[in-house]
Amino acid sequence: MTAQTATKREPSPADDLDPAMRELHGAYFEDLKLGQTATFGRTITDADIVLYAGLSGDTNPIHLNHDFASPSMFRGRIAHGMLTAGLISTVFGTKLPGPGCIYISQSLNFRRAVRAGDTVLARCTVTKLDDDKKIATFATLCTVNGKSVLDGEALIMVPTRP
Amino acid sequence: MTAQTATKREPSPADDLDPAMRELHGAYFEDLKLGQTATFGRTITDADIVLYAGLSGDTNPIHLNHDFASPSMFRGRIAHGMLTAGLISTVFGTKLPGPGCIYISQSLNFRRAVRAGDTVLARCTVTKLDDDKKIATFATLCTVNGKSVLDGEALIMVPTRP
Amino acid sequence: MTAQTATKREPSPADDLDPAMRELHGAYFEDLKLGQTATFGRTITDADIVLYAGLSGDTNPIHLNHDFASPSMFRGRIAHGMLTAGLISTVFGTKLPGPGCIYISQSLNFRRAVRAGDTVLARCTVTKLDDDKKIATFATLCTVNGKSVLDGEALIMVPTRP
Amino acid sequence: MTAQTATKREPSPADDLDPAMRELHGAYFEDLKLGQTATFGRTITDADIVLYAGLSGDTNPIHLNHDFASPSMFRGRIAHGMLTAGLISTVFGTKLPGPGCIYISQSLNFRRAVRAGDTVLARCTVTKLDDDKKIATFATLCTVNGKSVLDGEALIMVPTRP
Repeated sequence: MTAQTATKREPSPADDLDPAMRELHGAYFEDLKLGQTATFGRTITDADIVLYAGLSGDTNPIHLNHDFASPSMFRGRIAHGMLTAGLISTVFGTKLPGPGCIYISQSLNFRRAVRAGDTVLARCTVTKLDDDKKIATFATLCTVNGKSVLDGEALIMVPTRP
Repeated sequence: MTAQTATKREPSPADDLDPAMRELHGAYFEDLKLGQTATFGRTITDADIVLYAGLSGDTNPIHLNHDFASPSMFRGRIAHGMLTAGLISTVFGTKLPGPGCIYISQSLNFRRAVRAGDTVLARCTVTKLDDDKKIATFATLCTVNGKSVLDGEALIMVPTRP
Repeated sequence: MTAQTATKREPSPADDLDPAMRELHGAYFEDLKLGQTATFGRTITDADIVLYAGLSGDTNPIHLNHDFASPSMFRGRIAHGMLTAGLISTVFGTKLPGPGCIYISQSLNFRRAVRAGDTVLARCTVTKLDDDKKIATFATLCTVNGKSVLDGEALIMVPTRP
Repeated sequence: MTAQTATKREPSPADDLDPAMRELHGAYFEDLKLGQTATFGRTITDADIVLYAGLSGDTNPIHLNHDFASPSMFRGRIAHGMLTAGLISTVFGTKLPGPGCIYISQSLNFRRAVRAGDTVLARCTVTKLDDDKKIATFATLCTVNGKSVLDGEALIMVPTRP
């Protein structure tokens, strides 16, 4: 980076990081391209559901009680929708853009139930880049066996290159 | 209930539940009123953050790495936004409407960072009741010390009384 | 409440709670009636057994070791009795009387083994109300498929209405 | 063991265990003595409380919500009493008598609150041996800094030597 570009650019939240910490930083706004995509996948187990019940406090019997869940429209216990939603945040926080980005908003449409044993694939894809505000829009999609279980859109503020 | 009302009303997902399980069911659509509200509060601890990192896979250093987080704009480690968001779902799944309701959608605007030690109060308030679709709209707000850290709106499908 | 009743009544532990926290409070002693009952149900999974082994430190092979448990009188691995017992406390802490009550004592008679896959229904029923001490006695019963796996009695101190 | 004593004695649940599994078996009824004692200690952390909330479903704000717990008579968040009670079972299942014994009953008197950071010491002491029924009575005591937080009595059926 030349001194000239350095004086022109706006301050970045990454400026304060020492070199070792800067290595942990994810992509910068300038690195993002329309259509760029990243994924995180995870098999949901009974252990995830039990632990998430504790973390969230959501002990709804549809998640924890087979006798309640079996005759319900879901025909069995299902995972918390917000447990699936968390996998979207994992893509942002660890893959694309990665550490350093700031979560502005997220919309979530719950499409199908997820059950213990299902492997959820969360995919985030850049759909818009606002150069003025340094905000990227992402399409966010979670699938099980190729079928949508959760979709929505996220706005992420992404620091410029320090 | 008279045979007449029984034949008139639409089938409810709660119809199949045996009496012991019906006791676990939450409010029915007919029970909801505009302005009705319920809360769930919880202190976010380091344990919550560590466990949520494991459950979600979101190992972003802003949550887990003091050396990365301290010089950042957040001036320290923060909780996952989606960990806070989960408390909204807890109100729906355990308080209002409670067991039996179906999460349709949720929007999330992340307003302020939450840190270990903060007590988050999630509040959900009925803002609209769609009698045709049996869908309730809720304003969803999470606060710490009375200040918004997360707000948005949720659509919840609520079974009719069996 | 009139000033007169306010001066007459005894101080309640709920007096110090601000309005938002008071919303989280459960039933008060005056709300309880003989025969009043509440339940919490939960399917015990292998995850519950593994996690409870870790939390309690009870690594008895009857819970964790198929080769030890199979030839035993239980003919297979069983859940910790105290894991089942905890569901009684869940009724008290979240349903009846709910937040604010104080656990004084509990007796536990372990009647039958519980296994992964069993759905335990814990039921607590008011059997005695001591108006002087503000202590409620509850019959506490845990069943699987309608058969008792654990029964006993609990004493709960319940705050008076603030 | 002589053939004579082997034919005299009653069948034991440990008879069916192969030698490798028999190694895992704890004490037999004949091994127990009045006054014999064993302990298990554990520091209760915030992680224990969060995990136990998920396992039990007990999300009472006295355990999870600082703003609710602070003005309460406990002056802060406390651990679930049943989390402490589980440590008694750990002594029985892993120390004395150890694997092979059968939990018949337990009484629990909750004496003082336990908080995150407290180290609980559970101690079980043989107080009576019923030679006919092969049932041992134990005094069960949990202390923090030498002060009782929980006491009671347990009946344990203990197999005879195979």
